[in-house]
Amino acid sequence: MATETRQWLLQSRPRGEPTTENFELRRVELPDLDDREVLVRTLYQSVDPYMRWRMRDAESYAEPWDVGEPMRARVVGEVVASRHADFAEGDVVTGNLLWAEHAVADGGDLRTVDPSRAPVSTALGVLGMPGITAYHGLLDVGDPSPGETVVVSAAAGAVGSVVGQIARLGGCHVVGIAGADEKLDWLTGELGFDAGINYATEDVRARLREETDGVDVYFDNVGGEVTDAVWPLLNVRCRVAVCGQIALYNATDQPTGPRKFGGLIETRGRVEGFLVSDYSRDQQSEAVAQLAEWIAADDLRYRENVVEGLENAPEAFLGLFDGVNVGKQLVQVASRSS
Amino acid sequence: MATETRQWLLQSRPRGEPTTENFELRRVELPDLDDREVLVRTLYQSVDPYMRWRMRDAESYAEPWDVGEPMRARVVGEVVASRHADFAEGDVVTGNLLWAEHAVADGGDLRTVDPSRAPVSTALGVLGMPGITAYHGLLDVGDPSPGETVVVSAAAGAVGSVVGQIARLGGCHVVGIAGADEKLDWLTGELGFDAGINYATEDVRARLREETDGVDVYFDNVGGEVTDAVWPLLNVRCRVAVCGQIALYNATDQPTGPRKFGGLIETRGRVEGFLVSDYSRDQQSEAVAQLAEWIAADDLRYRENVVEGLENAPEAFLGLFDGVNVGKQLVQVASRSS
Repeated sequence: MATETRQWLLQSRPRGEPTTENFELRRVELPDLDDREVLVRTLYQSVDPYMRWRMRDAESYAEPWDVGEPMRARVVGEVVASRHADFAEGDVVTGNLLWAEHAVADGGDLRTVDPSRAPVSTALGVLGMPGITAYHGLLDVGDPSPGETVVVSAAAGAVGSVVGQIARLGGCHVVGIAGADEKLDWLTGELGFDAGINYATEDVRARLREETDGVDVYFDNVGGEVTDAVWPLLNVRCRVAVCGQIALYNATDQPTGPRKFGGLIETRGRVEGFLVSDYSRDQQSEAVAQLAEWIAADDLRYRENVVEGLENAPEAFLGLFDGVNVGKQLVQVASRSS
Repeated sequence: MATETRQWLLQSRPRGEPTTENFELRRVELPDLDDREVLVRTLYQSVDPYMRWRMRDAESYAEPWDVGEPMRARVVGEVVASRHADFAEGDVVTGNLLWAEHAVADGGDLRTVDPSRAPVSTALGVLGMPGITAYHGLLDVGDPSPGETVVVSAAAGAVGSVVGQIARLGGCHVVGIAGADEKLDWLTGELGFDAGINYATEDVRARLREETDGVDVYFDNVGGEVTDAVWPLLNVRCRVAVCGQIALYNATDQPTGPRKFGGLIETRGRVEGFLVSDYSRDQQSEAVAQLAEWIAADDLRYRENVVEGLENAPEAFLGLFDGVNVGKQLVQVASRSS
């Protein structure tokens, strides 16, 4: 059994765009397990845009990470040792652990992953937090009806790619916005989006006018100028589900933009923010069960962008802001023992 | 019976803040009545912020007024002649008529006003569109619960003053924002608001921190910097009812300001625009009946700011943007015949 491990800590708070300088890899002793604790060996670690919020020293829905302390991440791992009755050596589990090769968790904070259902990495993506976010964010907040037009930004990302497919399965006209033609080819070719718009090379508003009769549901992952472009196209009784604003996360000053609320009077529109953590365990299980069923029927597809090695975790995280990843961004830290 | 009348027409479209130059008073012949038509003599004419939208040549929820054509307004008037079975000479009616001493209306577009219930001018204010807007906007869109904090901007206006009182009747902690101490004295003294903030002389955000534990419902009549000041105080699960954005109506360029949607993720907040015209006749009647009951019980009070004479209607309208009026801004065009 491992007696020490490597883990990433927050070396300093970024100002503006984070760099690898903000992270420090260190080697630490693993403590002995207390009652109900479990030692987990990380197989996959998730990196997500929301982590940028935790790197800043500001009030947020999430506690900021402390400088000099380990950083947290959703992890899929294998149980190495357990003093909790629900978990045995070799079990695959998921939980909110650390950017680390090993971590000790309270068993109550872990959930078992069934390796027979799908590759275990999907517990961090399409069958994990991003998939559940897409499911409840679209269906509960966006609340689309068949025949309506759904537009999603960061459409090739872990959340956006699932949003668009659920909308398609619900009989909506689906337009995805992303920053690379290869992404759009995947969305319209394999995932069945009706259209894709490249915000880096095309006039988003003009293209939306061509591809839609206005927008009924806008699932917003990015904010900023992409959202500005969508805004005048919103239809009466539109719903805007605010899931993320990644275009603004690295801003050093208060970002400014067009004032948008006047348009909500004309459209009687609704803009609503949400957090996946507000959904109950039952609601999350409902989402995962439905998503797994769609995957089994080949109605829902996903991609993972896997970076190898814990030492490359910061680069994997930084890549989220460069718009290079397609699908769920993961770090593979180890392979399953056989 | 009158054979001619005076009416205001839109002489030119304003650029920025409107001036009296944009209006022209002319004398016209009154047509003979067709079947089902009614000739109405204006007693009171309403001026409202939304009229600024109709002066511009842009798509909106409302058709723009044409240059050289008469301008429309909610009116309370007296029937002078009628070819509609529901209306007889001497009846008091209300409808969407003209900035004019007389106007011909289809009887189907008029509604009878009961002069025994309240002064007939209230059909343009607390028992008319502004009161109904306050009632449904607060209760349906804002959806406050007892004990919650409700903040309303333009709180001494026709809509805001009613919003705050309905919130008070519902057991909420009510804070009004307005631009003059005399207005705030009226709100906290006579209307029972818990606190008032003068945006012209006080730090709105600092005062809100003193007066509230955060804002659960923000009823927004103004937009712009007042709304910016409220924003960081919004509580989890806040609701923002977007009723008006008068601070922005005279802008010649696209107004800009802080990007606000990130905060909605943290608060899981909802921002929703609405139009009173979306509410059904039954819903509007329900509002008027409840408002009248509160007035009769002296639970709800109102003020009217009455400008005398049709020739002063443009000044009455322009006053809306100077923030000088308290309560409902009206133009008295004539007195009831006895």
